[in-house]
Amino acid sequence: MARGFRQKIRQKNTENSGFGSNASGRFINKDGLPNVKRRGVNVFNRLSWYHTMLNLSTFRFLSYLMVAYILINLVFAMIYYLIGVEHLTGIDKSDPLNEFIDVFFFSSQTFTTVGYGRIAPVGFTASLVATFEAFLGLLTFAIATGLFYGRFSRPRAYLRFSDIAVIAPFKESRALMLRLAPYKNNALTDADVIVSTAIEVIENGVPKSNFYSLKTHLSKINTLALNWTVVHEIKEDSPFYAFSEDDFKSTDIEIIVQVRAFDEVFSNTVVQRSSYVSKEIVYGAKFAPMYYPDNNDQTTILDLDKINDYQKADLPAVLETINK
Amino acid sequence: MARGFRQKIRQKNTENSGFGSNASGRFINKDGLPNVKRRGVNVFNRLSWYHTMLNLSTFRFLSYLMVAYILINLVFAMIYYLIGVEHLTGIDKSDPLNEFIDVFFFSSQTFTTVGYGRIAPVGFTASLVATFEAFLGLLTFAIATGLFYGRFSRPRAYLRFSDIAVIAPFKESRALMLRLAPYKNNALTDADVIVSTAIEVIENGVPKSNFYSLKTHLSKINTLALNWTVVHEIKEDSPFYAFSEDDFKSTDIEIIVQVRAFDEVFSNTVVQRSSYVSKEIVYGAKFAPMYYPDNNDQTTILDLDKINDYQKADLPAVLETINK
Amino acid sequence: MARGFRQKIRQKNTENSGFGSNASGRFINKDGLPNVKRRGVNVFNRLSWYHTMLNLSTFRFLSYLMVAYILINLVFAMIYYLIGVEHLTGIDKSDPLNEFIDVFFFSSQTFTTVGYGRIAPVGFTASLVATFEAFLGLLTFAIATGLFYGRFSRPRAYLRFSDIAVIAPFKESRALMLRLAPYKNNALTDADVIVSTAIEVIENGVPKSNFYSLKTHLSKINTLALNWTVVHEIKEDSPFYAFSEDDFKSTDIEIIVQVRAFDEVFSNTVVQRSSYVSKEIVYGAKFAPMYYPDNNDQTTILDLDKINDYQKADLPAVLETINK
Amino acid sequence: MARGFRQKIRQKNTENSGFGSNASGRFINKDGLPNVKRRGVNVFNRLSWYHTMLNLSTFRFLSYLMVAYILINLVFAMIYYLIGVEHLTGIDKSDPLNEFIDVFFFSSQTFTTVGYGRIAPVGFTASLVATFEAFLGLLTFAIATGLFYGRFSRPRAYLRFSDIAVIAPFKESRALMLRLAPYKNNALTDADVIVSTAIEVIENGVPKSNFYSLKTHLSKINTLALNWTVVHEIKEDSPFYAFSEDDFKSTDIEIIVQVRAFDEVFSNTVVQRSSYVSKEIVYGAKFAPMYYPDNNDQTTILDLDKINDYQKADLPAVLETINK
Repeated sequence: MARGFRQKIRQKNTENSGFGSNASGRFINKDGLPNVKRRGVNVFNRLSWYHTMLNLSTFRFLSYLMVAYILINLVFAMIYYLIGVEHLTGIDKSDPLNEFIDVFFFSSQTFTTVGYGRIAPVGFTASLVATFEAFLGLLTFAIATGLFYGRFSRPRAYLRFSDIAVIAPFKESRALMLRLAPYKNNALTDADVIVSTAIEVIENGVPKSNFYSLKTHLSKINTLALNWTVVHEIKEDSPFYAFSEDDFKSTDIEIIVQVRAFDEVFSNTVVQRSSYVSKEIVYGAKFAPMYYPDNNDQTTILDLDKINDYQKADLPAVLETINK
Repeated sequence: MARGFRQKIRQKNTENSGFGSNASGRFINKDGLPNVKRRGVNVFNRLSWYHTMLNLSTFRFLSYLMVAYILINLVFAMIYYLIGVEHLTGIDKSDPLNEFIDVFFFSSQTFTTVGYGRIAPVGFTASLVATFEAFLGLLTFAIATGLFYGRFSRPRAYLRFSDIAVIAPFKESRALMLRLAPYKNNALTDADVIVSTAIEVIENGVPKSNFYSLKTHLSKINTLALNWTVVHEIKEDSPFYAFSEDDFKSTDIEIIVQVRAFDEVFSNTVVQRSSYVSKEIVYGAKFAPMYYPDNNDQTTILDLDKINDYQKADLPAVLETINK
Repeated sequence: MARGFRQKIRQKNTENSGFGSNASGRFINKDGLPNVKRRGVNVFNRLSWYHTMLNLSTFRFLSYLMVAYILINLVFAMIYYLIGVEHLTGIDKSDPLNEFIDVFFFSSQTFTTVGYGRIAPVGFTASLVATFEAFLGLLTFAIATGLFYGRFSRPRAYLRFSDIAVIAPFKESRALMLRLAPYKNNALTDADVIVSTAIEVIENGVPKSNFYSLKTHLSKINTLALNWTVVHEIKEDSPFYAFSEDDFKSTDIEIIVQVRAFDEVFSNTVVQRSSYVSKEIVYGAKFAPMYYPDNNDQTTILDLDKINDYQKADLPAVLETINK
Repeated sequence: MARGFRQKIRQKNTENSGFGSNASGRFINKDGLPNVKRRGVNVFNRLSWYHTMLNLSTFRFLSYLMVAYILINLVFAMIYYLIGVEHLTGIDKSDPLNEFIDVFFFSSQTFTTVGYGRIAPVGFTASLVATFEAFLGLLTFAIATGLFYGRFSRPRAYLRFSDIAVIAPFKESRALMLRLAPYKNNALTDADVIVSTAIEVIENGVPKSNFYSLKTHLSKINTLALNWTVVHEIKEDSPFYAFSEDDFKSTDIEIIVQVRAFDEVFSNTVVQRSSYVSKEIVYGAKFAPMYYPDNNDQTTILDLDKINDYQKADLPAVLETINK
């Protein structure tokens, strides 16, 4: 960090970031979640298993269900086996392994309530266990139903943020720009954006993060159907006003973006966040267009693969004037 | 477009439509969705299958479920057949076709967990497949349960917009009017409307869409139980102030309407949009009433079939004064 | 209506009620729904069957399910019977009635996926129908699951309004008061109330409803745990300022109340409305208290049965001054 | 309560607490629910069984389901037994107990739709009851599915409040501080806090609770990821301005805190409340830090077990000046 750096920022920092000025590392991860670990309490109270199940990938979620299904059946197979295979009709008693295989499948036929009846319980104990297992099976699938619904009905913004932010020429001056676009067939309206930044400064010899809110050129749009380039003009009221290319590179900067919009399918407000640290900011570049009319001029094509496309752009020589 | 046209609009255009000024074709389709196609990413990431399933018609949705059910059973029938029909009890072995038919029905009895037991698996492999199929069946119906609930619990405004907008006489002047009415037994309160317009203008020889917000006479109503005629008075602050009948016809205009209300059954905010292009605007007309008292004067009847009824109406000769 | 009545109201009426001034009968029913009937479109499009199912009483809802269950089974029993009972194993063939009874129960065992197997299909046609019936059964219960959840998870305010409103003494003057209380174990916070009135006046010899909003003494409260007495002080800015007891009785008045609050269990905003017409307004009365400390002074008791309790109360003689 | 106490508070009390000034006991319980009991109506109308089921602990909820399952099966077993075991195939008729055991298990196999078929109904009456029981079983599990989903999808803030509030030194003066932290893996943003207090005062010899809102140093933060120390500076506009340590101890004070935030997983606003009475306020103390950087300085650790940690702290001698 350049010496005398603190004086370059004349804006008042904000205190309502929710992060302490001596928290460490990135504040917001690229996926928008805060970079905080929790300790204490016990792990069961600290984890919302429902939130956890909702955040799993589809593959892992299905695998967990599968593994649970097999484990539960193994446990019940064990119980039926211990009770004695003579309490089940139709068991293949040729050898112990076949016996166990048959009780395992009896268990699965009970848990899923298929109940072919080729194997069926006789007598109190086996019937009682089967009664409980069928009940447990139905509750398990009741929970699975809820989890599936929770997973796919969870309102999400489905926004793709550009991987990089750029410092681009804007009017007579410079602007910090980043962009985002909806990538799924959802319909977002009434979108707004809030941008803030954390800048590490040295105060009395101690490094410390200050937070500043960044004004944007347009902070609300009616329909979020095409890409949205968020523009923070670097004017006198910007903490970056006196920043040179070198300052952007050598300072610990984090740009935090939050987009909020109304999803018309879910009829719900959705929020998505991302953040950009110093090395994700390209100085002297501008984004390339990412939408264009289709051939017969009847609709607009949004090409999501171009979201990170940018080209070099010369910035006006404003710093000389400022630092004079 | 009339020459010298640009000068007719003295209002400042708004930048927060979310559409670029060089996007092409209609901006908002008649059903309220933006007229944008997405490219790039891959199609699986670009489609939210849940949004897709929610937007299908009931008939197509049920057909898809049915087809999926048949296909899954065919696949499992194939697997059981390959494993060998000797691993299933009660199969009709008179000829290969009958064998296949029986394994197909065994599969469906397993997938739906009916499990009559007339046909039942014996031996490890067939039992294992059946165990998996019953599990898959339950998960499939868990997902179907979620989709059904998602489909019918999805908050929607159920508003019908008039197919056309009219330019009607209003006070001493003209007004753009369109109307809408709730057509289902839902209860909407605290409704508000936002109207904007895109007008294609020639700037420096290049066609370009400018966006303007249109003030409405009443922008909020307490109860949306009868029809609501949205009125934009064409006064000095309207971009249409100097528009003649010919201007309305020869210019590319799009009126975008968004209604937002609170549904008391869903306890949720619902939004619906529509749009009107030049050829959907009738100049010199006014809407006919669409509600009336019932015979014994105890309730009000809203006749939804009359939503598009209008009659010719003479407009005041205001343009002469304006263009003088 | 008293002659010269119109001059008594000097307040400006509001136009955003959403009701026309010539709508007829009560505007809002006692249960809060608008008193409007819809015609046109066809009845299937006009009814949201989901809203309908949600608004049924529990008893009727269960009855409908039961009847549907029996009808579906009768239809399928008919189909199996026509296909021929020889395609089902285990049928009691002693006489045609017994045959029909057995196919009926086979149908129900298939539809619910119980599938004991005492009766089971053999051959292509019967098996195919059974395959379809089991599928239909599962989808039906998927829909029932959604309806049950929709019914009991539907956010509702569970407020009880007093059956009557009173004109009570308040400070030096009079006030219109009505009260409401939450009657279930839900927790409501951040409640607000909006009160308006429709008054029928004669304008140019034609009766016409004018709407006025009524200011309330407190329009927001933090916690809605006890009863809330909504107070509209009848001051100079009230349309009732010059109303005598006789005016209240002889004029068509409707007081419309809307309460909105945040339910902490549903984490949702809930809304409830009611209305009071002239004959539901008691002139010269005040509400009796309906909560009191418990015996050991550790909690507060809210007695919901007292919500309509009031006692006579003398009103100050303000009208003489006003009408002078 | 100190004599002359009322004069110490010069702030205007607020009337919109929703609690009467003569309600008794604590207003808000530690868990955030109002300390009110309802009487009247009948208990079935007064209880929302859905709210009740949602508020049960997991253990009790599962136990209730289990007990219901056993009771229903006992009832149906009784019915089948009364109809006569000769109407069921495969019953062990060695003695009445075995008969009853077998009909009990037949019932459970029907209710869960397992339907092995070892025991199956023959004849009209038993089949009819079984038809109804299978239907009831599916509806019961439909309801259970809804309850499970309702339970785990219910949006909650998952905040832990400090057990105690402290009066700590702050700037040149004193401040009331309490703190809270999210303890689960949910992501809260846009949090705000509202703090108010109820103070019992003697007016005309009668004790009476007055409510005051308390200004907080920061009332909104962007991200609620770390702990949040809510600070009410005791300045001239605070009702506690003239309070000595003794006043805090001898007066009936209740501090009511409400936190509202947006949960990004549920995409919903969540609210949580708590309250602090006099004996839960520690005079002359400050909270110890509860978060720190991890070893490699890449993330921040939030230690939830430290939420109640505080150390003694000397308060500035401000009261002398005030009471002079």
